[in-house]
Amino acid sequence: MTNTEVLIKDPFWHSYSELVRQTVIPYQWDALNDRVKDAEPSYSIRNFKIAAGLEEGEFGGWIFQDSDLYKWLEAVAYSLRHHPDSELENTADAAIELIGKAQHDNGYLNTYFTIQEAGKQWTNLYEAHELYCAGHLIEAAVAYYQTTGKRYLLDIACRFVDLIESLFGREPGQMPAYCGHQEIELALVKLYEVSKEERYLNLSRYFIDERGQKPEYFIEEWERRGRTTIWNKGKPNLEVYQAHLPVREQSVAVGHSVRAVYMYTAMADLARLTNDSELLEACKRLWNNTTHKQMYITGGVGATHLGEAFTFDYDLPNDMAYAETCASIGLIFWAKRMLKLEANSEYADVMERALYNNVLGSMSKDGKHFFYVNPLEVWPEASEKNPDKRHVKPVRQKWFGCSCCPPNVARLLSSLNDYIYDVSNGGKAVYVHLFIGSDIRFETVAGGKVTITQQSEMPWNGKVQFNITMPGTTNELFELALRVPDWSHSKNPILKVNGEVHPYQVEKGYAKIERNWADGDTIEWMLSMDTQLIAAHPHIRANIGKTAIQRGPLVYCIEEADNSAPIAALSLAENLDLSNHFASDILGGCEIIEGNALIEDQDWSEERSYRPLQKNKKETRFRAIPYYLWGNRKTGEMSVWIRYSHSN
Amino acid sequence: MTNTEVLIKDPFWHSYSELVRQTVIPYQWDALNDRVKDAEPSYSIRNFKIAAGLEEGEFGGWIFQDSDLYKWLEAVAYSLRHHPDSELENTADAAIELIGKAQHDNGYLNTYFTIQEAGKQWTNLYEAHELYCAGHLIEAAVAYYQTTGKRYLLDIACRFVDLIESLFGREPGQMPAYCGHQEIELALVKLYEVSKEERYLNLSRYFIDERGQKPEYFIEEWERRGRTTIWNKGKPNLEVYQAHLPVREQSVAVGHSVRAVYMYTAMADLARLTNDSELLEACKRLWNNTTHKQMYITGGVGATHLGEAFTFDYDLPNDMAYAETCASIGLIFWAKRMLKLEANSEYADVMERALYNNVLGSMSKDGKHFFYVNPLEVWPEASEKNPDKRHVKPVRQKWFGCSCCPPNVARLLSSLNDYIYDVSNGGKAVYVHLFIGSDIRFETVAGGKVTITQQSEMPWNGKVQFNITMPGTTNELFELALRVPDWSHSKNPILKVNGEVHPYQVEKGYAKIERNWADGDTIEWMLSMDTQLIAAHPHIRANIGKTAIQRGPLVYCIEEADNSAPIAALSLAENLDLSNHFASDILGGCEIIEGNALIEDQDWSEERSYRPLQKNKKETRFRAIPYYLWGNRKTGEMSVWIRYSHSN
Repeated sequence: MTNTEVLIKDPFWHSYSELVRQTVIPYQWDALNDRVKDAEPSYSIRNFKIAAGLEEGEFGGWIFQDSDLYKWLEAVAYSLRHHPDSELENTADAAIELIGKAQHDNGYLNTYFTIQEAGKQWTNLYEAHELYCAGHLIEAAVAYYQTTGKRYLLDIACRFVDLIESLFGREPGQMPAYCGHQEIELALVKLYEVSKEERYLNLSRYFIDERGQKPEYFIEEWERRGRTTIWNKGKPNLEVYQAHLPVREQSVAVGHSVRAVYMYTAMADLARLTNDSELLEACKRLWNNTTHKQMYITGGVGATHLGEAFTFDYDLPNDMAYAETCASIGLIFWAKRMLKLEANSEYADVMERALYNNVLGSMSKDGKHFFYVNPLEVWPEASEKNPDKRHVKPVRQKWFGCSCCPPNVARLLSSLNDYIYDVSNGGKAVYVHLFIGSDIRFETVAGGKVTITQQSEMPWNGKVQFNITMPGTTNELFELALRVPDWSHSKNPILKVNGEVHPYQVEKGYAKIERNWADGDTIEWMLSMDTQLIAAHPHIRANIGKTAIQRGPLVYCIEEADNSAPIAALSLAENLDLSNHFASDILGGCEIIEGNALIEDQDWSEERSYRPLQKNKKETRFRAIPYYLWGNRKTGEMSVWIRYSHSN
Repeated sequence: MTNTEVLIKDPFWHSYSELVRQTVIPYQWDALNDRVKDAEPSYSIRNFKIAAGLEEGEFGGWIFQDSDLYKWLEAVAYSLRHHPDSELENTADAAIELIGKAQHDNGYLNTYFTIQEAGKQWTNLYEAHELYCAGHLIEAAVAYYQTTGKRYLLDIACRFVDLIESLFGREPGQMPAYCGHQEIELALVKLYEVSKEERYLNLSRYFIDERGQKPEYFIEEWERRGRTTIWNKGKPNLEVYQAHLPVREQSVAVGHSVRAVYMYTAMADLARLTNDSELLEACKRLWNNTTHKQMYITGGVGATHLGEAFTFDYDLPNDMAYAETCASIGLIFWAKRMLKLEANSEYADVMERALYNNVLGSMSKDGKHFFYVNPLEVWPEASEKNPDKRHVKPVRQKWFGCSCCPPNVARLLSSLNDYIYDVSNGGKAVYVHLFIGSDIRFETVAGGKVTITQQSEMPWNGKVQFNITMPGTTNELFELALRVPDWSHSKNPILKVNGEVHPYQVEKGYAKIERNWADGDTIEWMLSMDTQLIAAHPHIRANIGKTAIQRGPLVYCIEEADNSAPIAALSLAENLDLSNHFASDILGGCEIIEGNALIEDQDWSEERSYRPLQKNKKETRFRAIPYYLWGNRKTGEMSVWIRYSHSN
């Protein structure tokens, strides 16, 4: 990959990156400092102060609380890339200094063990998240170094990694172990990429390959601890931690979904950087299982809150979904790595699906409220009164005791420019994965500096335009590869070059045009944005007889604010007469979809709950809004999947 | 009520009482003695032996394990009523002797505290089930005394009650308390009815009225215990235990469903025996809430496994249902008491619904396997692999660690004769609640001894016949009140007396014929048994767009053994063409229902799970079987509620 720079200038996404910059980052800083009223405290900064000896007190929050600060710093680093802000940078520098003070002389850094369990370090890899936190420290350090050029946090991270490298491995005296929560594996790859130090790559590969080997380390250390655990009960469940099999032998996504996708991300990185075809095959098997059989239409993964986990193929209950925000973010990380292995639009389709639906929907329009769980069907009274659905919140929360998701959203949205393009073969080809208005500057094989300006009205409109500028040169040979999204398959997109319809060939989901591009060339890429009714695989029991509405990358839902409750009584009419228009007065402006529906008979004068069936239906209109905007009005029912009528 | 005797002679039910007598009772005796291979041990007899000083060892099983033996003894007592069996009686006598040996000199009797926590008696009313076990001891003792005339167990019970009476109350030195699991309240009423000792009735009323008073006893004793609990976490949840409000002020069924219905049963008893109109009103309010808004069509109650509890109105998920067998049995107890308060067929309708569906379905055809949870929709793979559905077993179990349900089924089925009739006003009227072939012998107001022989082909056929015999007299005046079941409302039942159609008036759901009946009179009561499609209240989200099939008292279901999976893909066709016939080769012989259905398109060549909707349907036939017979063939999917097609 050549020296490439991407700058987002998108009307839709710009508001989000600005929200992250102006609201989310400052708000989360307040949260980390326990200054958000009526929200669960984070304790994160306070823990570092105590560990640094600057305050007295007990450790607060989860054992992995340090990672929230690291993720915030990573988001700050991305934000500073394009929005220098000396005040914010000073705040971050001060936080980094605090982190440095909490580091032990030998490089060890973890406030929980420093404050609460001195001497117990590394005795519970299964649960204690020490390497996980180290991973987030590394990611933050790499990002902060890349943006600011400041090495202080990177040095802290490297000192810790030096310690870790000495402790873990198959040499005598080392621990043949790995973390209960995968994260350091992908972080070490980033550290390798920024430093080119092979040993970081080797350590990552060691953790990946040690996982699932016999004898089972988690069981052995559990025995050594006298069979004690922190919060899990009984013998470690290896499947939950993806340690039931060597990772190269895994084919089915199991266990905690965030752990899984973080691990798969690192596997894809390693497959690429070490040309490991066995690892690549494992990645492909796991990708197919995850995205073909265990993914919600919104790009959410994880069907149960118990263990925040995958369950099994085609088990995707809408009202019990977990579909954790972090898991979709991890899926996006993974998709990005798969794209680097193979430019196949399937990966970008999933990336886009997860981004525009699950992830975007996790944050409120004000950037201060978040969903941890992203259900596809909500009945607020059930969330309140049926304990099975306690995890399904009908309203975004201010902060969480376990607040992994909000800073994860912040770091993703503020680094979104990394996900739009890939420049491959040393500048031979430019892949456009996402249609997000932006400038990409890159070098061609011949060394020419080219800027492509993408203009997009996505997600509301399917017309995308690219303008090519190449200061100091007039012609450059490269291939432009435009993704043909899965949602545009019904009508072939139209390609125009300089206003003329231009033929193209599609290879692995990308329309490819290789030519000597000239300064001033324009490319139009016109994607059909018809509203589509989508069916789910017939083995997904929850969706049989139902359809979801999709328009472009956006999955739609019906909400009680627009439709009468119970919204499950609504079904799409045979004579659907769908229409869509941009409603500037709804939810800050969005494309809404309306059509004919039928409402199941609601007249029920009897006291009792059962009576002979009367097939009475009333005609009505329904209104659907983009899923990502749900839950921003009054609390009410919501559903993505809607029953449809059909003639026999 | 006069001296009345009822003997079941029903082809359908006789096989069940014989199953209980010949199989369930001996099998459960083996279970109580830990002799059932591959089943969880009961420890019940062993605990009594240890408590009696006959064996050494630790207490085994749940804290309320004693109650299993008591419930077994109660079932034995009912069985011996009509089937004297000296060997069984000897076995029971020996068990009773063992119980006596485990009793303390002061009357105290509970093997858990005797073995495990001597000195801790009565310190945890909230969880420890001491009064609950005492209640089952009382019920067993009353039943055993009524059948055999032997007082030994009754004396044990009375000694224990004497102790309890001295300990509980509002006098100085007494505990102003009640049990965490209601049961003794209804048992003390039985003890009153057999002994006519008012103090037992008063003690029952005391427990009922103390419940929910301030200060909250469960919280106080929790504080005294240093805030420790056995298995619950944190501060006692009063709503789960129906102790959140004085019972007279309660209107909504909340909390653990078995506790609730046992309590409501005692409340109805007390309302009747003490002419307490306030308590009666509370019973009616709670009845209406429970059966109109929180009951499954199968007569199951309890929508969540978490706390085995009610959730809220119209929240009745089919695939997550708890619908515990014991809760439906308690509902039957309660319905029987409500019928004594007021002969209203609504109570008998619910009694019949719970009996023929939830309760009957809980036991396998072989009498050796039981459901604790009775779901209305099962996907076996989800039960195995989605931890949210771990409680929903697709196959009946041999025995349970917490084995409250199997002995409860046994005692209900062996005392079913008590539920068929009520003779009221000293022999002035005979109410027929259930259409179960049987003889009832009773005395009229005039002192005449009348036998009514009921012949019924229920649940397969709607024709019921009654023959009246009155040895030594030729005419007796009394009213015969025949229930008009809720499922026969669409066509008025036809009544014939001595072969002639006879007019009748319906009062509160009973067809009443008062006349001077003559020896040899015959009454025919012809109930329509049309197959009905049933709709659920539109607020029950889970059932919108679906229908259930009912024929007579039986709710039907579709099973994978007869229909292809996923059975959710099946919907009833517009042109339904329903037919039913008795299939002697299916499940030991049952009336099956068949009709036209549509199957959602199962062709799916794509790897991914989502694609544009194609409304392809295939025509097929479906077969439904009675719900109570589900799960007796190969493991597979099952559903009570089925989607239906409809024209716009």
